Amino acid sequence: MTKKIKVGVLGATGNVGQRFVQALSDHPWFELTALGASSRSAGKAYADAADWKLGREIPKSVADIEVSEINPKYIDADVVFSALPADLAKTTEPEFAKEGFVVASNAAAMRMEKDVPLTIPEVNPDHLALIDIQKKNRKWDGCIITNPNCSTIVMAMTLKPLEQFGLRNVNVATMQAISGAGYNGVYAMAIYDNVVPYIGGEEEKMETEILKIFGKFDGTKVKCADFKVSASCHRVPVIDGHTEAFWVDMEKNPTPEEVKNAFKTFDPKLSDLPTEPEFPIIVCEGPDRPQPRLDREMGGGMSVSVGRIREGIRYVALGHNTIRGAAGASVLNVELMHKKGYI
Amino acid sequence: MTKKIKVGVLGATGNVGQRFVQALSDHPWFELTALGASSRSAGKAYADAADWKLGREIPKSVADIEVSEINPKYIDADVVFSALPADLAKTTEPEFAKEGFVVASNAAAMRMEKDVPLTIPEVNPDHLALIDIQKKNRKWDGCIITNPNCSTIVMAMTLKPLEQFGLRNVNVATMQAISGAGYNGVYAMAIYDNVVPYIGGEEEKMETEILKIFGKFDGTKVKCADFKVSASCHRVPVIDGHTEAFWVDMEKNPTPEEVKNAFKTFDPKLSDLPTEPEFPIIVCEGPDRPQPRLDREMGGGMSVSVGRIREGIRYVALGHNTIRGAAGASVLNVELMHKKGYI
Amino acid sequence: MTKKIKVGVLGATGNVGQRFVQALSDHPWFELTALGASSRSAGKAYADAADWKLGREIPKSVADIEVSEINPKYIDADVVFSALPADLAKTTEPEFAKEGFVVASNAAAMRMEKDVPLTIPEVNPDHLALIDIQKKNRKWDGCIITNPNCSTIVMAMTLKPLEQFGLRNVNVATMQAISGAGYNGVYAMAIYDNVVPYIGGEEEKMETEILKIFGKFDGTKVKCADFKVSASCHRVPVIDGHTEAFWVDMEKNPTPEEVKNAFKTFDPKLSDLPTEPEFPIIVCEGPDRPQPRLDREMGGGMSVSVGRIREGIRYVALGHNTIRGAAGASVLNVELMHKKGYI
Amino acid sequence: MTKKIKVGVLGATGNVGQRFVQALSDHPWFELTALGASSRSAGKAYADAADWKLGREIPKSVADIEVSEINPKYIDADVVFSALPADLAKTTEPEFAKEGFVVASNAAAMRMEKDVPLTIPEVNPDHLALIDIQKKNRKWDGCIITNPNCSTIVMAMTLKPLEQFGLRNVNVATMQAISGAGYNGVYAMAIYDNVVPYIGGEEEKMETEILKIFGKFDGTKVKCADFKVSASCHRVPVIDGHTEAFWVDMEKNPTPEEVKNAFKTFDPKLSDLPTEPEFPIIVCEGPDRPQPRLDREMGGGMSVSVGRIREGIRYVALGHNTIRGAAGASVLNVELMHKKGYI
Repeated sequence: MTKKIKVGVLGATGNVGQRFVQALSDHPWFELTALGASSRSAGKAYADAADWKLGREIPKSVADIEVSEINPKYIDADVVFSALPADLAKTTEPEFAKEGFVVASNAAAMRMEKDVPLTIPEVNPDHLALIDIQKKNRKWDGCIITNPNCSTIVMAMTLKPLEQFGLRNVNVATMQAISGAGYNGVYAMAIYDNVVPYIGGEEEKMETEILKIFGKFDGTKVKCADFKVSASCHRVPVIDGHTEAFWVDMEKNPTPEEVKNAFKTFDPKLSDLPTEPEFPIIVCEGPDRPQPRLDREMGGGMSVSVGRIREGIRYVALGHNTIRGAAGASVLNVELMHKKGYI
Repeated sequence: MTKKIKVGVLGATGNVGQRFVQALSDHPWFELTALGASSRSAGKAYADAADWKLGREIPKSVADIEVSEINPKYIDADVVFSALPADLAKTTEPEFAKEGFVVASNAAAMRMEKDVPLTIPEVNPDHLALIDIQKKNRKWDGCIITNPNCSTIVMAMTLKPLEQFGLRNVNVATMQAISGAGYNGVYAMAIYDNVVPYIGGEEEKMETEILKIFGKFDGTKVKCADFKVSASCHRVPVIDGHTEAFWVDMEKNPTPEEVKNAFKTFDPKLSDLPTEPEFPIIVCEGPDRPQPRLDREMGGGMSVSVGRIREGIRYVALGHNTIRGAAGASVLNVELMHKKGYI
Repeated sequence: MTKKIKVGVLGATGNVGQRFVQALSDHPWFELTALGASSRSAGKAYADAADWKLGREIPKSVADIEVSEINPKYIDADVVFSALPADLAKTTEPEFAKEGFVVASNAAAMRMEKDVPLTIPEVNPDHLALIDIQKKNRKWDGCIITNPNCSTIVMAMTLKPLEQFGLRNVNVATMQAISGAGYNGVYAMAIYDNVVPYIGGEEEKMETEILKIFGKFDGTKVKCADFKVSASCHRVPVIDGHTEAFWVDMEKNPTPEEVKNAFKTFDPKLSDLPTEPEFPIIVCEGPDRPQPRLDREMGGGMSVSVGRIREGIRYVALGHNTIRGAAGASVLNVELMHKKGYI
Repeated sequence: MTKKIKVGVLGATGNVGQRFVQALSDHPWFELTALGASSRSAGKAYADAADWKLGREIPKSVADIEVSEINPKYIDADVVFSALPADLAKTTEPEFAKEGFVVASNAAAMRMEKDVPLTIPEVNPDHLALIDIQKKNRKWDGCIITNPNCSTIVMAMTLKPLEQFGLRNVNVATMQAISGAGYNGVYAMAIYDNVVPYIGGEEEKMETEILKIFGKFDGTKVKCADFKVSASCHRVPVIDGHTEAFWVDMEKNPTPEEVKNAFKTFDPKLSDLPTEPEFPIIVCEGPDRPQPRLDREMGGGMSVSVGRIREGIRYVALGHNTIRGAAGASVLNVELMHKKGYI
């Protein structure tokens, strides 16, 4: 590759924003050239604007980048990754797309729009074709591509190898990490020594997004899948890593061994995207795995770990919510776009 | 009541043993006269033998009781509550029953024996009748009565009001407290910032005990119920209080409102047992309840809280695992026995 | 006592406010007649306005009390307990005092005013005499009395028995609970698996308040004590209970045994105030005590526990920050005022 | 370097053992050729014997190494790093030294032996000279070198730049991580929502080891330093990273600014040891830093972070207890030995 693609991050100072910066600061294909944040941060060096919380040194290459306002005029990049809150995303992302940017968004705002791909490279790469339709529809030079909600991604990754058995019904109980709510999203008094059995909008996202992701693209639109997901979402005192317990009812009624084998042999054939993990799904052999503190960093945070596959079919899955479930998912999407010639 | 019944605790120094002591130290019907523990503790004052961990002063009335060896000869009581580990319970409890003691056990060892009641007063009080059969069978002067496993109790309490709708299938994901494994059961490094998706034997207990509890007693034996429970058990970083997420499939397909009403109007008519809570089931109106830290002490730790009743039927339940799920359950059983004339 | 004194709580819905309600809902001398909160809560029943977080049922006697605005006109009480934030307290408390209320404040705003008692009944009960001077100075029908900051109270309770040895220098490192910052004061992401070695203003409060508390009242004013306190304050992942590690340098250079004896024989002779614990200071014999989770509830949360008394003189102390260190401290002050005839 | 030095780890499966493996699996100077553990593990592949807990994949280069018994006969290496428990270390380490191994030990057993260096490369590299004396004394072909206790290392690193001001008295309160006690060292029920103000032997280690470390080597022996350390050690609910609050009394009475400058300009001139961090001491500018979760990984876990430098002189320091405070310290010692020609 002769020249790197210029990329920016919108909402660069927050939790997911910092994960984007981490993923992009030393990327073989992308060069991080723009960091957008609120007007309060604009004009400051990134190291001063962002209260860096990722537990290692802030990457040197970005520490001195001057933070810009979130405005197409001030963002010098070809691709922008959006870690904006949903309401702001709704108005801002189309502005950027209109101005010719490729917008890869982690926000919920545009996910369910008919002409916007809701994509996981390992699951529904063909949905990228919606981009051409979107550009035509909306008369945009740029485009918007989205990744699903964090807990949906973990689920989707594990359902993909099971699709062959005929998905019928999925019950899923999540045990989600605190970081999923953003740095300021959960008070310590609310979650310490506690479980909160409710996360606003989360169950709905899991139940609807999954059907679009597994929908068939017929050349013009995506027809949603017709299996059923019933979710029960809980916040637990864990920093990073969503754990999800599944009951999956399938037409072909596979044995646990067949399911295990499906996970083990799952190969999405992405052919060497930089952020792609060696193993998209890791089957844990330990009887008490996966566990968030031990398994969330597997594959650089991009692998989904599964274990406890047993009659039911029941199993437990685990993925890093701000890497595989957010920033990493979005970066992987853009890598796929680049590979497929969309950028 | 003119005279109190003399009761003892076997395994009095451990986690559940301390809960027994707490429940019995100031009981209107029972007088705590004997505390049994390992030979290492025997001969010491209870305050010295037990490393009291319940967060308040050790009850004065028991601090000076001399700990006895766990042997029918040394235990001066009519009823003994057993907080023994399963293997020790298996040999010890029958010895005590043979010697004429009423043994109320929290251990798993005898629960599934055909002539041993596995009882929750609010759910299957009629199973107490197994006691007469047991005494006759085994030629014992005393008897053994057991309470279910902690997570099973929480589940059973919430399924009882739903029995009327025809239970067919139950999927349940538990988020269980650390204390359920005993004081020394979980290392801090194993659970902090973590979820452990496995608790040895727990899923099997939930899936089998429940069928005996909901079984019909036909005058001679209990015929197990025939609905199906599929459990996924997880340990979370919570001190006390098991949270359980349910999907309950029922023949009559009740609405969430009907289910809620069934919970609200549930009245087991125990008529004033001392350890009975004012409300056996509390329906939480808050959208994010029940929560272990806020709701586990309701009804003195004896109420089960439910919330988030929604289509599915899905709901979340919460109970104090070492009170409602262990010591309190056992004490309530003996209170019922006393009321019904078995003691 | 023929008739109970009518008392109210200002800021009744917050963390400390709820502790006040808990302490006053079933008080032998006081009747809780008014609950003041922000205009957003005013008009609602207390049970609806307050998101009750104390882990047991909200007291029935207060659930239906209608919340009032924080205005002397709407508060029907003789005494008001203030759990207001410092800035609001600064203007509001004098208004109430002017209108004839006895204001017992947990806020920092008025603590260091020369004519306002900063009192702990076990430590400096004679400072109550400032009330007469205050009323005269300010031409108020009512008055303001304050209790110290939570970490200062724990420290002061343990220094009082040591005053006889000639206090010279105190180094103290605190490990403070999350609840000390209020329910919304600390984000989970900020404190989980973490220590925050800074609490705004806390070290200054510990270093200055203590000198006023130990100051001599000469009939007209309090002359601050002249020993020195140097504090290092840290937030740790604990719900309730401040732990404090001390090095105390004293003129008479007492042995650890003499210090221990001074703690054990400490008797403030309060003569039966209702909120007074049986033991104001509990000397822990266990080598690894006191510990917040095990000792914070001692004496109903009003005892301060000390342990690990050793050469240096070093020791560790522990007190419940929102009971002994806040609401309970304030209630005890008013009980003392009542006993001494100020009310 | 033409050929790598063969190194082994004794006690390779435990907490610190795994940190050694992590540090050595991809080392530019050392080749990990032997992993010693209990006979229960011997013969197994390391990946099977060790329950890998470091939150990332087990290094591929070591996964298949066969674990050996801890016996000089079976360990194929020139240098062994010892993560053995103290009692086992006491007999085993001399055996290895006798057989010609360089033993770099993290155990306490031999630290205070007069002819054994207790070394931190940044603090007292000249003490390495004790090795020659030791070999002569003991007629060993090999030798033993030790690193201090984890909390002592963090302290020593921060006291070194202050030595120039004349150290007189140090009071230090530690807030230590759970991992410091080993994987099985602390029960969850003991530390969750809690502080334990006692760690067996820890205060004594801090108070004595520091004086040997800062002692002067006169060519034949180390004469202990004569300042005084008084420690109060506490366990807090943190996974990794010891936080320490200091009061340092110095002859020259430096200002906080002078102390800060001493930290900032501290340069141990180790000249590029592979495990040496870019900055041995990082001065945190944030008012609420250092914090274990955010700062423990700085410099690959080898930097010590300090902050809150203020009158007193008070400051707070933070270091990773199993990297800088254990495995990394030991590896750095051997790197220094190699550089200085001892290996």
